[in-house]
Amino acid sequence: MRVLGVDPGLTRCGLGVVEGSTGRPLTAVAVGVVRTAARTDLGARLVTIGAELDDWIDRYQPDAVAVERVFSQHNVRTVMGTAQVSGLAIVAATRRGIPVALHTPSEVKAAVTGSGRADKVQVTAMVVRLLRLGEQPSTPDAADALALAMCCIWRGAAVDRLTAAARAARADLSAAQAEVTT
Amino acid sequence: MRVLGVDPGLTRCGLGVVEGSTGRPLTAVAVGVVRTAARTDLGARLVTIGAELDDWIDRYQPDAVAVERVFSQHNVRTVMGTAQVSGLAIVAATRRGIPVALHTPSEVKAAVTGSGRADKVQVTAMVVRLLRLGEQPSTPDAADALALAMCCIWRGAAVDRLTAAARAARADLSAAQAEVTT
Repeated sequence: MRVLGVDPGLTRCGLGVVEGSTGRPLTAVAVGVVRTAARTDLGARLVTIGAELDDWIDRYQPDAVAVERVFSQHNVRTVMGTAQVSGLAIVAATRRGIPVALHTPSEVKAAVTGSGRADKVQVTAMVVRLLRLGEQPSTPDAADALALAMCCIWRGAAVDRLTAAARAARADLSAAQAEVTT
Repeated sequence: MRVLGVDPGLTRCGLGVVEGSTGRPLTAVAVGVVRTAARTDLGARLVTIGAELDDWIDRYQPDAVAVERVFSQHNVRTVMGTAQVSGLAIVAATRRGIPVALHTPSEVKAAVTGSGRADKVQVTAMVVRLLRLGEQPSTPDAADALALAMCCIWRGAAVDRLTAAARAARADLSAAQAEVTT
């Protein structure tokens, strides 16, 4: 399974592609940051980021796109731009029929470090270790994008296991009921 | 001058096209609301609204697109979707080289009613009167979209007058300086 993680932002938008499945080491396929200058027109910034998102999806053909779920409570000054960029990522994936997973920052931190309250340094260190990277990603946004993709692969697998367990339980239950009625 | 006004929203996105220039009565060319159901997937909702925005811009060929400036302070529960839709409108216009104007709700209310604190009923009543509409727009979102377009036409004209006045003042000043030096 290949996932593109997107840490949305107007000034820096982190992008990371991770491949693998649960129980095996994951691999980083690509990582990068799209930067746009604050002095530039908002429309031009959004169009630039949108074009990069399209380009990464077309180039890396992910099976899913994982986007950080933005909360309006956090960082009020920058939240509008962050929400706008997250919308572009969701639209770029949905237009191509690629499923979108939204993960909260604490889900991502918990998946990668074991603690939902880990700081950026801890997240980056675990991303480097788990993906066996030769060097640290250039910015925390790039590391966060890789962490998002890893979280999506692991949580997706966990959800699949739970769904399978629930299906098995329902099957068991209806078998038991069948026994009672006969 | 023809302007498409966009009152961004996930559940209801108001769209209104107004044509005219300052000093003459303005005309409503088209008005509508894009609705998406809250139970639908977020990606599908954003793609639907994005396609309608593209369609309206291509059909009505506006000279400018006026979008309500979203504040994170207002209505925290719905602000993320509103920001995402506003981003789609800004991108749809910018990709086509059409200028985008962002207006705050109080700028729009002041332009249309004379008061930045007017309520929805007052805004709708003034929109109906100023555009000589036969009936009220179906929802306040539709009326707001028309009001945004009207605000853009009037404020744009005001900005043009100020720019022209400033240019004339600078020309006067350099003429005066030329007189001093000769």
